[in-house]
Amino acid sequence: MEKGCPYGTHRVIEPKGSLPQSAYKIDNSMEIFSNEILIDVLTLNVDSASFTQIRDSCNDDIKCIEQTIFSIVKERGKLQNPVTGSGGMLIGIVAEIGKDIQDKNLNVGDKIATLVSLSLTPLKIERIKNINLGTDQVDIEGKAILFETGIYAKLPDDIPEKLALAVLDVAGAPAQVNKLVKPGMTVSIIGGGGKSGVLCAYQAMKNVGKDGKVIVIEYSEENAKKIKELELAHEVIVADATKPMEIYQKINDITNGSLCDVTINNVNVPGTEMASILITKDEGIIYFFSMATSFTRAALGAEGIGKDVMMIIGNGYTKGHAELSLNILRESQKIRKLFEEKYC
Amino acid sequence: MEKGCPYGTHRVIEPKGSLPQSAYKIDNSMEIFSNEILIDVLTLNVDSASFTQIRDSCNDDIKCIEQTIFSIVKERGKLQNPVTGSGGMLIGIVAEIGKDIQDKNLNVGDKIATLVSLSLTPLKIERIKNINLGTDQVDIEGKAILFETGIYAKLPDDIPEKLALAVLDVAGAPAQVNKLVKPGMTVSIIGGGGKSGVLCAYQAMKNVGKDGKVIVIEYSEENAKKIKELELAHEVIVADATKPMEIYQKINDITNGSLCDVTINNVNVPGTEMASILITKDEGIIYFFSMATSFTRAALGAEGIGKDVMMIIGNGYTKGHAELSLNILRESQKIRKLFEEKYC
Ligand SMILES: NC(=O)c1ccc[n+]([C@@H]2O[C@H](COP(=O)([O-])OP(=O)(O)OC[C@H]3O[C@@H](n4cnc5c(N)ncnc54)[C@H](OP(=O)(O)O)[C@@H]3O)[C@@H](O)[C@H]2O)c1
Ligand SMILES: NC(=O)c1ccc[n+]([C@@H]2O[C@H](COP(=O)([O-])OP(=O)(O)OC[C@H]3O[C@@H](n4cnc5c(N)ncnc54)[C@H](OP(=O)(O)O)[C@@H]3O)[C@@H](O)[C@H]2O)c1
Repeated sequence: MEKGCPYGTHRVIEPKGSLPQSAYKIDNSMEIFSNEILIDVLTLNVDSASFTQIRDSCNDDIKCIEQTIFSIVKERGKLQNPVTGSGGMLIGIVAEIGKDIQDKNLNVGDKIATLVSLSLTPLKIERIKNINLGTDQVDIEGKAILFETGIYAKLPDDIPEKLALAVLDVAGAPAQVNKLVKPGMTVSIIGGGGKSGVLCAYQAMKNVGKDGKVIVIEYSEENAKKIKELELAHEVIVADATKPMEIYQKINDITNGSLCDVTINNVNVPGTEMASILITKDEGIIYFFSMATSFTRAALGAEGIGKDVMMIIGNGYTKGHAELSLNILRESQKIRKLFEEKYC
Repeated sequence: MEKGCPYGTHRVIEPKGSLPQSAYKIDNSMEIFSNEILIDVLTLNVDSASFTQIRDSCNDDIKCIEQTIFSIVKERGKLQNPVTGSGGMLIGIVAEIGKDIQDKNLNVGDKIATLVSLSLTPLKIERIKNINLGTDQVDIEGKAILFETGIYAKLPDDIPEKLALAVLDVAGAPAQVNKLVKPGMTVSIIGGGGKSGVLCAYQAMKNVGKDGKVIVIEYSEENAKKIKELELAHEVIVADATKPMEIYQKINDITNGSLCDVTINNVNVPGTEMASILITKDEGIIYFFSMATSFTRAALGAEGIGKDVMMIIGNGYTKGHAELSLNILRESQKIRKLFEEKYC
């Protein structure tokens, strides 16, 4: 058994010299190298920005979505949406562990979630069993490979696996909120009614304490109502984040002109950078978790109005992110119930 | 005289509701609103990523570059490159000041540089007088509008105007280095031989002090030699930043495996996100100033290798950036000479 590069470059077909994530095509043959793990895949959790794009391009036609997924994987060796660039993650059963990465804590037969993006994971789909439009999850028969540097989490016993998958997909977001949000702060969460948004709102409420303020900005009345009922924010605004001036006026009113210390962007549609910048105070922080964020729009947008904000690219990984997000389900019966209704 | 929105939304033609930077088309008629400034433009400093893209698409043919610039401005009302999304900045003479923004310090006839991107600045070009392939600067006859929130700097007496324009275009970068780099740190500057790179290297050398280390990664031997001669780094590496593993190995060797606390990315080509991520240590910081940065490549690339780094979107503006960057020219005769040779 040959040993591969810890980062997976040995599977990059083109362009040579790049890493698997930025590669156009990778090798998805399913014989493992000595530092790889082979996984029998059960379910793919497609990234929300990617799934939304595929659904839209297919007008929600299941056959078309199925074909799109098949053809992406066939062409690229991985499920990386060519439009959004994003992937998602998966759960499956460990089928084989390369001899050079034996880890006492992992055994063949264990059920794991990969914590690295599908946009760099070698994947082969034999058959699509079910596509769930409501949860962005796709049950398949197939196999995937995890590289030596690829992180994963063993699925916990106390949380249903599809629920765990859904939450682990966005685990980086609440963990970053935990790092950035301090007591007394005013925090806005754009797209706060979605999956990652709910987790971020919960964490922000916890961190701001009794003197802080959490504001959720949501598109649908329905999601907004849910946030209010669950008491996941002090204020909930129903508005379209692609309309920056509208959002700005509302946040300006609610905060008496002092705006937000931290803004978290969790939407799944393009064009919300300016709303995020306008509602954040000078020297405040914006955390863009949304995969629909445009780098240039953010950089030039802030400069264009002379706004001295720190804008962070939402790294999906930060230490302890899996534990922290699963613990939210353990701590909050309300969120667990909400998510169980959707994902179980 | 009617009063416009401080952010310039009154000039957005499409899509309605967006701000001028993200708008596809803005109104470049040259009658000002009461809170706008009219400028007689002298020179445009096209953003390096944009100019490189236009040059490439035109094979350096001056007529073609001229036509491309004309047609972008005609279609969009601003010089925003449709491929890179970026703009640049300009110098010109104040021709009229709206009555609602009278500022004692600014008078008709003053020479200023706009510090907001051309990607949101209403612009009309009458005539292109000269295109300088070496400096990305274009002399024109034409007019531009600055909105109420648009920042600018009066051109100093002690620095030639084209030199000031060149430096002000990238003023955000050294100012951010000044914020991020602390004594004793190891700092890499990718594309450190370019315009913004040289300023960043200077600032980093100053901030790391005697116990720190500054490493410049440059593409051309020629630029690398220059950096060594000017003593703007402790180490200079000649390599291609689109080849992440190569760069990683070199930095790993130089730092004895401890990698960089802060990485500054100043290149003008796509595909250098992974090199930046690989060479930065866990819990380190990456500052992406390059306009060719892809948000998803950075976010998913870091997650893909389980790297807990903070990645910052290079906001072109931060307080005091114009002063700081012009002061570098005042402090360093060597850099001044280098830039004068190129820009004067
Ligand atoms: N950085 C990373 O590593 C990483 C990892 C995973 C996911 N992500 C990204 O994170 C984002 C959120 O993911 P998710 O799973 O939480 O998505 P989600 O559950 O679909 O949530 C998206 C939310 O955004 C709201 N929204 C959509 N358009 C809006 C608008 N115009 N104004 C205000 N709100 C709007 C939606 O509201 P309605 O439902 O009411 O329309 C929904 O509540 C996605 O972009 C995803 O790609 C990033
Ligand atoms: N965030 C903002 O607000 C803002 C504002 C202005 C500009 N920018 C961006 O900042 C970046 C730098 O601007 P600049 O004016 O400093 O550009 P520049 O003078 O053209 O410098 C670019 C440097 O990158 C080097 N480079 C190119 N390809 C490389 C590779 N593959 N590996 C290593 N180095 C490579 C170049 O080296 P060679 O010359 O040897 O090829 C050059 O030294 C551009 O992307 C520009 O768009 C951002």
